[in-house]
Amino acid sequence: MNYIRTGISLFFEYDTPRIVHIQSKKVGVINRFIQFCIIGYVIGYAIIFKKGYQDFDNVQSVVTTKVKGIVMVNTTVHPDIQPIWDVADYIVPPQENNAFFVITNLIVTPNQSIGICPEDSTIHGSNCTVDKDCPAGTSLPVGNGVLTGKCDPDVSRCEIHAWCPVENGTTKAPKPAVLEESKKFTVFIKNNIEFPKYSVKRRNLPDNVSNDYLQSCRYDGGANSRCPIFTLQSIVEGANSGSYGEVAMEDIVSGTGSRYDELSGQGGVIQIRIKWNCNLDLSVDKCLPEYSFRRLDSSTYKISKGYNFRYSRNFKDANGTEFRTLYKAYGIKFVISVSGQARKFAPVPFFTNVGSGLALLSIATIICDIVVLYILKARALYKEKKYLQVVGDDAYKVLD
Amino acid sequence: MNYIRTGISLFFEYDTPRIVHIQSKKVGVINRFIQFCIIGYVIGYAIIFKKGYQDFDNVQSVVTTKVKGIVMVNTTVHPDIQPIWDVADYIVPPQENNAFFVITNLIVTPNQSIGICPEDSTIHGSNCTVDKDCPAGTSLPVGNGVLTGKCDPDVSRCEIHAWCPVENGTTKAPKPAVLEESKKFTVFIKNNIEFPKYSVKRRNLPDNVSNDYLQSCRYDGGANSRCPIFTLQSIVEGANSGSYGEVAMEDIVSGTGSRYDELSGQGGVIQIRIKWNCNLDLSVDKCLPEYSFRRLDSSTYKISKGYNFRYSRNFKDANGTEFRTLYKAYGIKFVISVSGQARKFAPVPFFTNVGSGLALLSIATIICDIVVLYILKARALYKEKKYLQVVGDDAYKVLD
Amino acid sequence: MNYIRTGISLFFEYDTPRIVHIQSKKVGVINRFIQFCIIGYVIGYAIIFKKGYQDFDNVQSVVTTKVKGIVMVNTTVHPDIQPIWDVADYIVPPQENNAFFVITNLIVTPNQSIGICPEDSTIHGSNCTVDKDCPAGTSLPVGNGVLTGKCDPDVSRCEIHAWCPVENGTTKAPKPAVLEESKKFTVFIKNNIEFPKYSVKRRNLPDNVSNDYLQSCRYDGGANSRCPIFTLQSIVEGANSGSYGEVAMEDIVSGTGSRYDELSGQGGVIQIRIKWNCNLDLSVDKCLPEYSFRRLDSSTYKISKGYNFRYSRNFKDANGTEFRTLYKAYGIKFVISVSGQARKFAPVPFFTNVGSGLALLSIATIICDIVVLYILKARALYKEKKYLQVVGDDAYKVLD
Repeated sequence: MNYIRTGISLFFEYDTPRIVHIQSKKVGVINRFIQFCIIGYVIGYAIIFKKGYQDFDNVQSVVTTKVKGIVMVNTTVHPDIQPIWDVADYIVPPQENNAFFVITNLIVTPNQSIGICPEDSTIHGSNCTVDKDCPAGTSLPVGNGVLTGKCDPDVSRCEIHAWCPVENGTTKAPKPAVLEESKKFTVFIKNNIEFPKYSVKRRNLPDNVSNDYLQSCRYDGGANSRCPIFTLQSIVEGANSGSYGEVAMEDIVSGTGSRYDELSGQGGVIQIRIKWNCNLDLSVDKCLPEYSFRRLDSSTYKISKGYNFRYSRNFKDANGTEFRTLYKAYGIKFVISVSGQARKFAPVPFFTNVGSGLALLSIATIICDIVVLYILKARALYKEKKYLQVVGDDAYKVLD
Repeated sequence: MNYIRTGISLFFEYDTPRIVHIQSKKVGVINRFIQFCIIGYVIGYAIIFKKGYQDFDNVQSVVTTKVKGIVMVNTTVHPDIQPIWDVADYIVPPQENNAFFVITNLIVTPNQSIGICPEDSTIHGSNCTVDKDCPAGTSLPVGNGVLTGKCDPDVSRCEIHAWCPVENGTTKAPKPAVLEESKKFTVFIKNNIEFPKYSVKRRNLPDNVSNDYLQSCRYDGGANSRCPIFTLQSIVEGANSGSYGEVAMEDIVSGTGSRYDELSGQGGVIQIRIKWNCNLDLSVDKCLPEYSFRRLDSSTYKISKGYNFRYSRNFKDANGTEFRTLYKAYGIKFVISVSGQARKFAPVPFFTNVGSGLALLSIATIICDIVVLYILKARALYKEKKYLQVVGDDAYKVLD
Repeated sequence: MNYIRTGISLFFEYDTPRIVHIQSKKVGVINRFIQFCIIGYVIGYAIIFKKGYQDFDNVQSVVTTKVKGIVMVNTTVHPDIQPIWDVADYIVPPQENNAFFVITNLIVTPNQSIGICPEDSTIHGSNCTVDKDCPAGTSLPVGNGVLTGKCDPDVSRCEIHAWCPVENGTTKAPKPAVLEESKKFTVFIKNNIEFPKYSVKRRNLPDNVSNDYLQSCRYDGGANSRCPIFTLQSIVEGANSGSYGEVAMEDIVSGTGSRYDELSGQGGVIQIRIKWNCNLDLSVDKCLPEYSFRRLDSSTYKISKGYNFRYSRNFKDANGTEFRTLYKAYGIKFVISVSGQARKFAPVPFFTNVGSGLALLSIATIICDIVVLYILKARALYKEKKYLQVVGDDAYKVLD
């Protein structure tokens, strides 16, 4: 019965620490000042500025794109290049996930068929005088084919099995770029995102606009910043050239972005960033995307400048022999990166910050105790008032 | 020697706060109630419900897919469309990373070659009466080519350089969809994931099943929910149509998903979500994927409905002139999103929660002190017992 | 005025708990031991080892790749396969985002055109004796076409509409692999990353090297571990075969990686992992990538072994009839996964750990109080010294 009564009495008791209340201007001011700093840090910095009262979730995203536009090429200047390039021609491959590539410049080698011909003169090691300069079965670094073992005496270069005639290494990428007018192409970016922790789903299409607006609008960083249709030129000019920085749309006017013609010659890589930073304690209508652009290819190294790759169109002649047109396609690879966080009030981060803030307040007591017990003139008095000495039977005796 | 003895004596001393033990039913009950709430929050909510005792790691994933199936087209109805479509025909491009596209419907424009012809009648601005209605070198919005500067008098439309004849804008996507039977195609999804912090690697293939099962099983959200082979129809019907919601497999039977024929006409975008939420304090065998599906294209705006793109097959005739078949391919873009977290007990989050929980308990003391010192009848007595007044020599004097 | 004076006096007062200072060897040692463990855990484990003083940010990444190399095929052994394969031939599709595929082996079915022919003998269900064994309009599982409804009496197999002649199911993937020499191909991986929270941008290209070095270097996990150009063979041999483990470059020499020829026959999936774990409290120059490789396809199930897909090259003959070469391409799918975290000192995680560490120290007091008040011999004395009993007017009376 004693245990039950003791148990019940637990509910009707209250333990509170006995407090030594020291009236001292010096210590009081130090104490309040430290407490103020700690509380200011906890409330002002940790909870409010660093959003310590919110939990967060990372965005998950799906992006699809559609490019439109058509361009004509001057075939007097470029006789090997087809005069008209439309979407089915300049988007290679037709689809990529989170990216798209637009051809801006070309070197075309038509009517290649597999055979034997001399290696290109720009290939290091292609020069020869005798057959054993050209070991059969090997290929030269960045070469176009596999050596037959013969040295072609007419041109003093190694023979290779290859798609012949090989691409002419002396041909430079045309200036101005063949598909310079691709700057006017438009891309419609559709981005669906989700914050799964909060079951919030958003998309970048604006709400409450007409079909006509959506057909004809163009993103400009300003009044039309909800429009998801971009011209390639505006994207490129929005990306700071030559460094790693990025620039928002507003810098088009000020002209500090890349120039399209600078990029279209050798190609490049542009990152289109869509940032979704949403405070879900506010209306979800305020959860909107921010676009920015960044140029990623670098001109530091010759080998890493620009962007190009090779592909071919293959045909068969009347005899069934396969031949092809080889395209060295320079162009802009646009990669779309979607990132962001949703934040929302949650009890756990809030109370964790409150709890460790309350614990941090004990620092004020620790510091002020040191002042009171070791620094002030009346420290002996304070020490006597603060401590109640109890000597246990197994105390450690400091012998004098 | 004094310092050494003082230092050693530190180990043999113990400071504990002197406690005022108040026996009062009112305060006792309030105190225990607040303590109970705080402890209940810390243990029940922060630690157990919100898994505050666990640290987490995000999933990293690689996905590959393989589609199988073959479909036949009624060439009486669609004379321009090839009669048989197999994997090499309807998956365009042949590979994408984390995505695949299946053609479900087509508008085919065969035998286009580059030349001069009238712009399509549906293109806004194509109508003309005189040559200056058609400024040379420009192209109309969503036009098929570049204006020559002439107005074709026979049809009163601007002439364009283009792949001629241009695609007929009045042709609607066929109904029913040309490759409607693509609903029966199957996709084998292979997903390898890793939680690098815990060195846990998993994959979605089931363990301990026979080769025969894996060849012939089909995912159905129920008994076969470990089978990684899906029919396209079951994926589409598992995705809630018309809203952002998603629906698990079980809703196929109840028929609340999208209907395949509704999607195949204009195309669409379907997200296949693979969620890996694993509690690594349990057996790693319980770390299994959950599949769900979500339709992403929206019918709110005409411009954003469905999904299609254009690609071509290019050929050369006996004269070496290039011509092509242009395909406007409607279809379903399947995008695979893998997400998830692994959680495992870790000391730091656990003790952080315990620590700030202990600190939060001081709130009970703060509140009950207010009650005891300012509200209760016997507050003068309690105040006298709680505080030991010490007046320092630099006390602030409140003059009466 | 009283309130103002009381308010001002708040700043000149200091409350410190009255302490019972017990000199007892037993309790003193227990107390210091527990405090030492708690402080050791907080400082040594939570703050230093688990980097509790740092906040972190996840990496965001863009990757582009370029493969180079050329290989010759023995056409005596493989008459249907073109003799030379260069980049435009073996990278299918020409571009993928964060991935690339290299053909290593092939089964070629040339000159297919759409017509009627017998189904392949390896297709389950293709055998027949009478027409009704072959229900028209259906297709067999993994079949090549759609059944016409007739049984071909010459070969006793169902007739199908298909691209004819169908691929021969008895043909095995050639051994050795047709494009075995693809092991010598090189891939240049360009990786741009960003830690947006800290505005840190990095790339994997080394700084301060010459153009010549970058043209000719090869990654080897050792002296050249900053070189971003890899041979396919070194990547494959760096990936542990047959299990989920991965192995860094150093294991090439020791030969514990996959062998290229083991992978090239049936194809496979290799993950190239680029890890960026950066401590931004150190110089940002130390923020460098680590490469590792992992083989993902598994040989557990016949159906999941290797990696292959089918694509076609389409042509038209003089009559305008379309025909094609069907390629069953085995090869290695390289998927690039970039991951990592940047860590940097931040006040909030640091002070949160300090705060909850201070709160945890109260556990020492809780445990030692139990020892002092309930276990030691002199507990009655200690109890009397610790507690100041105050009986309120509403105390709960335990009647004797």
